[in-house]
Amino acid sequence: MVIEKGDKLILLTNDDGLYATGLKTLLETMEEFGKVVLISTLESRSGMSQALTVKTPIRVKLLDEDEKHRIYTCNGTPTDSVKLAVNQLLDRHPDFLVAGINHGANTSVSVLYSGTMAATLEGCLYGIPSVGFSLNSFAPDSDFSVCHDFIKLIMNRLMDEPLPPGICLNVNIPAVGRDEIKGIKVCRQSRGNWKEEFEKRKDPMGKTYYWLAGYFNNQEPESDDTDNWALDNNYVSVVPVTVDMTAHWFLDELKERLDR
Amino acid sequence: MVIEKGDKLILLTNDDGLYATGLKTLLETMEEFGKVVLISTLESRSGMSQALTVKTPIRVKLLDEDEKHRIYTCNGTPTDSVKLAVNQLLDRHPDFLVAGINHGANTSVSVLYSGTMAATLEGCLYGIPSVGFSLNSFAPDSDFSVCHDFIKLIMNRLMDEPLPPGICLNVNIPAVGRDEIKGIKVCRQSRGNWKEEFEKRKDPMGKTYYWLAGYFNNQEPESDDTDNWALDNNYVSVVPVTVDMTAHWFLDELKERLDR
Repeated sequence: MVIEKGDKLILLTNDDGLYATGLKTLLETMEEFGKVVLISTLESRSGMSQALTVKTPIRVKLLDEDEKHRIYTCNGTPTDSVKLAVNQLLDRHPDFLVAGINHGANTSVSVLYSGTMAATLEGCLYGIPSVGFSLNSFAPDSDFSVCHDFIKLIMNRLMDEPLPPGICLNVNIPAVGRDEIKGIKVCRQSRGNWKEEFEKRKDPMGKTYYWLAGYFNNQEPESDDTDNWALDNNYVSVVPVTVDMTAHWFLDELKERLDR
Repeated sequence: MVIEKGDKLILLTNDDGLYATGLKTLLETMEEFGKVVLISTLESRSGMSQALTVKTPIRVKLLDEDEKHRIYTCNGTPTDSVKLAVNQLLDRHPDFLVAGINHGANTSVSVLYSGTMAATLEGCLYGIPSVGFSLNSFAPDSDFSVCHDFIKLIMNRLMDEPLPPGICLNVNIPAVGRDEIKGIKVCRQSRGNWKEEFEKRKDPMGKTYYWLAGYFNNQEPESDDTDNWALDNNYVSVVPVTVDMTAHWFLDELKERLDR
């Protein structure tokens, strides 16, 4: 792959593993915009959040290359992959980072756990315009093609005008027919949490172990300005996500409380 | 350990491993406030962010119990540990979650990578008043005793008045003598990023591998309202951290851009 002057260079990654349909779909869509460097683990690394690999070495392998893309596998987390690509593998600073298309939604506080959004935030921290895309379906035969038009629209807007520093986008797409999607809705992350129901089991030696399981609890199902509402009502949700986790509105009150 | 009516129940964890001095120091300090349930991995799990263990079972072991505390080890991430404790191990909903004292600061965007702050955010998502404490030193012989008075002060304030929903505290303590610390400063997370300098090495088989290394780049060293400024100037920094990563101020402009 030769990156010509004028070519857009796009860094692509996700956390569902190299052979995930969502990643393949996003690769094909991105090739309409420029040259793509894809980096992914072979197996899925979902729920890795912005974890770093600090105790073990990271290994990378160039797996495939043609005129439009270069594909690497890496044994690290999604965040490691972005760091390694930006610092060691890319010919130059990329014009965009895209992560996805994730198999399953990343709404509300899932942004805190998601490897997809962690990779997106990592791109954002490097000053790269970054977007994470997710499809609201865990079904093995999910149809990712419905995402195509919306990804193109959002990428085109990003090309027109960059995002402010420290902000990236979290895009969730309903898993319904193209005609059923009502449009794009800019929204905030909904207030919610996961209700855990660990499964407590015995291994063949009789020892106890736990499996993490649970379901999402939307604390404000009636609010129509949230990402969960948008998805539930067949809109594509777009949340601007910031790397600044300070609760700015609470700063003055906290000062007062600690001064007392 | 019997939890009497009127006892405060404190959940304690961190990511430096069970035998870390910071964890021991925080356990002792917390025993001044109530009954403590400690859960930690045996080995350190630094930089795990809010990662979840979804592919492998989680195992827990009750290691020690006396009148004041109960100590569990767990093979999961800091976030798993909090989830498991809240859902499976605790007698009732805890009154506080504290994480730390971390060996090394968690300022600026380190909040995104830190296992200490991930555990704190996890507590916050369960509606538990939650604080992460870190000491600004990586030295193996760091003196954590300097933290004692400040932890007590902050815990006392928390007991007086709870935090708003969705907000927890990120407390960083300078690693200097007690007399040199000028006080507590409420601040925002500074704008910064990590500059990575991967070390590229060859293993004994001649194959390339990478080690993650890097240094923090403060993008606004002159701003005196940030956590990094506070630490650099011998103040204890207290940042209110929110689980809401929406860039609220950018919502309207993003709507306008996508409507065009």
